[in-house]
Amino acid sequence: MRDDDAVTATVADLGEFGLIELLRQRLGSPERLILGPGDDAAEVAAPGGSLLVSSDLLVENRHFRRDWSSAREVGRKAAAANLSDINAMGGSPTALTISLGLPGTLDISWVTDLADGIAAECAEVGAEVAGGDITAADQIVIAVTVLGTADRPVRRDTGAAGDIVAVAGDLGLAGAGFAALSRGFRSPRSAVDVHRVPHPPYAAGPQAAAAGATAMIDVSDGLLADLGHIARASRVVIDLDTSAFEVPEPVATVAEALGGADPLRFVLTGGDDYALAALFSPRSELPDGWTRVGAARHPDMDEEPRVLVDGSPYDGPPGHQHFS
Amino acid sequence: MRDDDAVTATVADLGEFGLIELLRQRLGSPERLILGPGDDAAEVAAPGGSLLVSSDLLVENRHFRRDWSSAREVGRKAAAANLSDINAMGGSPTALTISLGLPGTLDISWVTDLADGIAAECAEVGAEVAGGDITAADQIVIAVTVLGTADRPVRRDTGAAGDIVAVAGDLGLAGAGFAALSRGFRSPRSAVDVHRVPHPPYAAGPQAAAAGATAMIDVSDGLLADLGHIARASRVVIDLDTSAFEVPEPVATVAEALGGADPLRFVLTGGDDYALAALFSPRSELPDGWTRVGAARHPDMDEEPRVLVDGSPYDGPPGHQHFS
Repeated sequence: MRDDDAVTATVADLGEFGLIELLRQRLGSPERLILGPGDDAAEVAAPGGSLLVSSDLLVENRHFRRDWSSAREVGRKAAAANLSDINAMGGSPTALTISLGLPGTLDISWVTDLADGIAAECAEVGAEVAGGDITAADQIVIAVTVLGTADRPVRRDTGAAGDIVAVAGDLGLAGAGFAALSRGFRSPRSAVDVHRVPHPPYAAGPQAAAAGATAMIDVSDGLLADLGHIARASRVVIDLDTSAFEVPEPVATVAEALGGADPLRFVLTGGDDYALAALFSPRSELPDGWTRVGAARHPDMDEEPRVLVDGSPYDGPPGHQHFS
Repeated sequence: MRDDDAVTATVADLGEFGLIELLRQRLGSPERLILGPGDDAAEVAAPGGSLLVSSDLLVENRHFRRDWSSAREVGRKAAAANLSDINAMGGSPTALTISLGLPGTLDISWVTDLADGIAAECAEVGAEVAGGDITAADQIVIAVTVLGTADRPVRRDTGAAGDIVAVAGDLGLAGAGFAALSRGFRSPRSAVDVHRVPHPPYAAGPQAAAAGATAMIDVSDGLLADLGHIARASRVVIDLDTSAFEVPEPVATVAEALGGADPLRFVLTGGDDYALAALFSPRSELPDGWTRVGAARHPDMDEEPRVLVDGSPYDGPPGHQHFS
């Protein structure tokens, strides 16, 4: 039984999020999972408890370039992006599986350096590699699945009007680094380095959960795009106060070098920093490392859940899109 | 710290199993996992219990061809290959994550048909899709991770001399089907169909565990190759009795069409059937669906653990190799 519209459309026509939504419909609603698809991680029942699980797929020249990043850096980032998903649930990652698709001509040292990078990032949080798969492929693909535990997983759909909005970790550095690399620069180094190897605030996720965060997400596609997921899932309007954001100096440097672009654009829409964004009840005391940047409210009549910047919609695309 | 030999070698030089062994060394021995890499699935601690986890990566034109198999068939097989890994631990699969790398030009209906096939195969065992990832890629890649539970996971390294060796499920049909397709035939249909959509004996794994199987593996690379993993891990010599095997009629048909090849070769070395092979203590009563096909003994002086056929080494490659 095919959808007639879908028969003639391509993957690129529908885009990543459209395709995910379509597949979610096809695969039905899981009945036995504690938390199914659509959050940073799913929660799967285990005898006597549960485990969080999340998977990512990284593809050469889409998610990393071998001329921009060393194999070790690619390994660290591949692990970090996945560990961050458990962080975003307020959990602690325990184990990963790594499946590699590799061209036969690839130098073995690239693969061992990749493994070293994965191991180094896992060591930051005490997670271990439990297994995986290796097979031949035309381009390098790295499929990572991470498992973790959480006393109280923090979802996307449980934020409430009246909550305050806060962030932890870098915002804008990786995006500015990417912009610099895209134009042939190798500096400012601190921005380029964060694009190559992000530093997710691993302590901040469990601390936010313990402090009573009502909703949380990691910032992989850009703050506005990712807060948009919380806004829609929690049925709230999130309004950000730009005066609360500090623009990192390397971000300002890149914006200046690009002919005076607004540096705040990197902070609000840059991806790949793997910061955390969360909602907290207004009575919460924010843990160390968290900065209040806005508030959530009920949508007005006929208003859709969305993210506003200083009370207004933000111009331009809110974050990264695949297949574009 | 690089291995000097490795610096100049390529992935193809080292091969799949060599690379896995090298990476296992680099990644170190997991200390907190209940069972680490090297079995059909790893066992990861969960609060109050544990979960089994296993990952596979399927790549277009390596693991499937769009002109040989429909998207639905590819989806069923991708799920089956992973569900089989939990079966081989004597466990029950509960949840999968599916990450897809897709060319932008791919028709959406191919992706929805793939999802339907995955859902259909999961429904056979009551497993559900918990999440995943979608991204652009030059060729179709399907990364699957499966989670499951087992009261008593059956490993590869716990078989013993004196055990009997038994198999459950199809052997040789998928390999014969692959040989037929490779030569441009579309028949015999029952062999070609099993290559497209294998039928792992899902009940047989938990039944073998309950009956006291001492070691178990699923047959993905060929019976001799996969029993070889048990032999080496359990430090035994496995001797198969070919008179115990029934050659399926379509396998004989393909062997005949290929100029009188030995049909037993498909049974012993054909991959992709996802049968189970297990060792049982000699006092065990084999569950329904299991057939005794040999026995395990201590290696003789200076003899390596290995698999023999009617008391002798078997000629030719024991199974499928990637990167070759």
